[in-house]
Amino acid sequence: MIKSEEKTQFAVIGGGVIGGGWVARFLLMGFDVKVFDPDPEAERKINLVIENARRSLPGLFEYLLPDEGSLMVCSNIEETVEDVQWICEAIPERLNLKQEVFAEIQAHCSMDAIIASSASGFKPSELQFMSSNPEQIIVAHPFNPVYLIPLVELVGNSKTTEKAATILKQLGMHPLTVRKEIDAHIADRLLEAVWREGLWLINDGVATTKEIDDAIRYGFGLRWAQMGMFETYRIAGGEDGMAHFIQQFGPALKWPWTKLTDVPELSEELTKKIAQQSDQQSGHYSITELERIRDDNLVALMRSLKTKDWGAGNQLNQVDTLLESTSVKPSEILTQRSPVLTSNRVVPTSWLDANGHMNDSRYAEVFSKASDIILRRIGSDVGYIAKGFNYFTVDMQISYLNECLAGDKITVFTSIHLAEGKKLDLRHEMKNAQGTVCATCTQFLIHVDLASRKSCLPVEPVAGILMALD
Amino acid sequence: MIKSEEKTQFAVIGGGVIGGGWVARFLLMGFDVKVFDPDPEAERKINLVIENARRSLPGLFEYLLPDEGSLMVCSNIEETVEDVQWICEAIPERLNLKQEVFAEIQAHCSMDAIIASSASGFKPSELQFMSSNPEQIIVAHPFNPVYLIPLVELVGNSKTTEKAATILKQLGMHPLTVRKEIDAHIADRLLEAVWREGLWLINDGVATTKEIDDAIRYGFGLRWAQMGMFETYRIAGGEDGMAHFIQQFGPALKWPWTKLTDVPELSEELTKKIAQQSDQQSGHYSITELERIRDDNLVALMRSLKTKDWGAGNQLNQVDTLLESTSVKPSEILTQRSPVLTSNRVVPTSWLDANGHMNDSRYAEVFSKASDIILRRIGSDVGYIAKGFNYFTVDMQISYLNECLAGDKITVFTSIHLAEGKKLDLRHEMKNAQGTVCATCTQFLIHVDLASRKSCLPVEPVAGILMALD
Repeated sequence: MIKSEEKTQFAVIGGGVIGGGWVARFLLMGFDVKVFDPDPEAERKINLVIENARRSLPGLFEYLLPDEGSLMVCSNIEETVEDVQWICEAIPERLNLKQEVFAEIQAHCSMDAIIASSASGFKPSELQFMSSNPEQIIVAHPFNPVYLIPLVELVGNSKTTEKAATILKQLGMHPLTVRKEIDAHIADRLLEAVWREGLWLINDGVATTKEIDDAIRYGFGLRWAQMGMFETYRIAGGEDGMAHFIQQFGPALKWPWTKLTDVPELSEELTKKIAQQSDQQSGHYSITELERIRDDNLVALMRSLKTKDWGAGNQLNQVDTLLESTSVKPSEILTQRSPVLTSNRVVPTSWLDANGHMNDSRYAEVFSKASDIILRRIGSDVGYIAKGFNYFTVDMQISYLNECLAGDKITVFTSIHLAEGKKLDLRHEMKNAQGTVCATCTQFLIHVDLASRKSCLPVEPVAGILMALD
Repeated sequence: MIKSEEKTQFAVIGGGVIGGGWVARFLLMGFDVKVFDPDPEAERKINLVIENARRSLPGLFEYLLPDEGSLMVCSNIEETVEDVQWICEAIPERLNLKQEVFAEIQAHCSMDAIIASSASGFKPSELQFMSSNPEQIIVAHPFNPVYLIPLVELVGNSKTTEKAATILKQLGMHPLTVRKEIDAHIADRLLEAVWREGLWLINDGVATTKEIDDAIRYGFGLRWAQMGMFETYRIAGGEDGMAHFIQQFGPALKWPWTKLTDVPELSEELTKKIAQQSDQQSGHYSITELERIRDDNLVALMRSLKTKDWGAGNQLNQVDTLLESTSVKPSEILTQRSPVLTSNRVVPTSWLDANGHMNDSRYAEVFSKASDIILRRIGSDVGYIAKGFNYFTVDMQISYLNECLAGDKITVFTSIHLAEGKKLDLRHEMKNAQGTVCATCTQFLIHVDLASRKSCLPVEPVAGILMALD
């Protein structure tokens, strides 16, 4: 994203769900990617993942992502890893296979390229075994779907992981550098514990796959999408804090609650039981349908966290801040009344209604955000609001001229029709990528003293900026 | 909620975070509650929880909840449990204490009242020990904050849990009946496993509380807010399904990943380490602030799932369906052009903007939903859309007259100004609880053939309903 002068080039070895997810994120964030997978079906499978990413990822942002990078499918590792800065390994989880592939990669890649393994279980020291240049091999463990979930666990040489973290942030991801290498890093250690316990519950006939999933998504899953376990329990501990909570809850660990010491045998019978329960729970959807439902849900959830500027939502807002600086330039002082770009974005999947198009109220949302850009450019920004002033909308009139569908690129240009005393009268025009006007909007705002909630004349810097407009 | 003729009366024994959360949910869903807690501070503490609930729960719905029930603080158990249908026990997690309280409750309550223990660890058979009427004692284990999180685990006598499930649904909750009684039911078994593993990670210096929380909320927490573990992994398994996934992932269980066999000693040192890390992570917020951030996040997350009609969002939509039938009556055929109620709701916390009031675009959302009610009442409902017809908005003009704040009750009345041929012209008026007009809106819609996306004349039943309007 926001390509720097020195363009990072990406290579991906392995085009499964994880490798394909990496490819999709690199491409959609604007970088060129080379990929290699010996599977003759790989290109088709990768393109399916890219399709899913195209319909979900761009809608996470309030601004258009850079143009997609280009994808080159290579026929061998040598060609793939030449002249790239980041080599992503996403082949099956077999250590000797990974070690062989690393040897071949290192025979052809640059000495200072990052070789980032998607390994969910292995430690860097295992992956580096016998390597000619071990420091360049690190773990960068992502989560499915890679094009939406921000987390990447980084493990390995601190210089390399530091460099990697910078690049991952450019991809809109959340790098989490793990302090010590351990099997399965952090997240999979936690997941493994739940998985094991879940298998026991099914094995013992206590719960079905659906019941366990419902216990998660109607319960602690909602908590964990925004705060993790410790922050959640901190609240439960009340003003007395975590030490108090541990004193209360701690002893439970000694009770015979879990069957964690043993692993249920994954017999044919247990496997069949789980598969049947899963069919009953989700079998009425194909995997493709489930993927899209999941992605649309994630877009809606993550977009809702943006409005609270919290967790994954804060992460997305940081990307928006980068994107807007090259697009609507909210910190450049406005000098003209004539139309300027105030929005440049795609329609998120979460904005559709029963007619299958962008809901009428979302047009108002787009225009409202466009006005915010004008306000920031005339000096009515966070600092001005803190001083106790801003504009309130008094009247908004929208003409709907054409439908917008999910993924449609839209731009808004806004002009200042009138800026006089307390009054600010804006004209918005929304177009799609074909240049068709989708809607127009006239929006009348009035300058307000936020303490008295009454109208008043603008103060500096707004007054001066308005006065100087062409 | 939606009180039935025979009004269920609730009693709560214990006014801590969980008891107070139950009290708040009962009250806000429209039921009277009696509560007892020997702590002289109990009433103050309960009121703090009710305050938190008031600012978050009503905003989950698109319709106004029934009037709040009344709260009676009692001075002993006898007075509290008399003449009620549901007695909620939420006292500390000590078995002998709970057994004593059950004995006292049963000495005074009705034989057919449900005694629902919030116990997170104990089995009904333990709670029922020596009881005179064991079948009436069940576990109904909720999750903090009880006024927002839908999950309740039900364990015990199947007749009693069936009756309890019906009542919990009236409270907008998701009852999950557990098939076999086990220590800690389902969710806490899973949580306990993660907690244990988390403690090891901190003990061993692998991660801090913040790093573990970030591994959750930037990663699998987002997945688990909408699909649980098994449905998520089903997707990872691809078209080959769960059996394939288990074959792939299963063996990892035999790897030495987890340290689950031992429990880290909760020494003073480890407790201090966790408390210090937690302070560093979240100490800049008070618990009250954290509670409100959490609640606002949950409202935003759950409301976003409503737009996808999925999981906890589907749950909320079911409640809306009940609420709308007593409010805007969308299935009653419209017979008049003059104003009818089309919205009756509160402003959710997630609708505010930088000015601290309802964002201008949310007025459009309210009016858009009000139009949907008119459309449904003139026959343009799901069935009509399936037949290939509906109305599209062509023009919308909103006049903003007064601010709305989070929690404000607003109503919209809508009249049909014109319904002629393809044209439908609506007039909306939004008022707050004081009767002040907050906004007016004129909305012009046109009837459309959804296949050709072109305007056309309405067909039956819409044509006939419009013709018959007063």
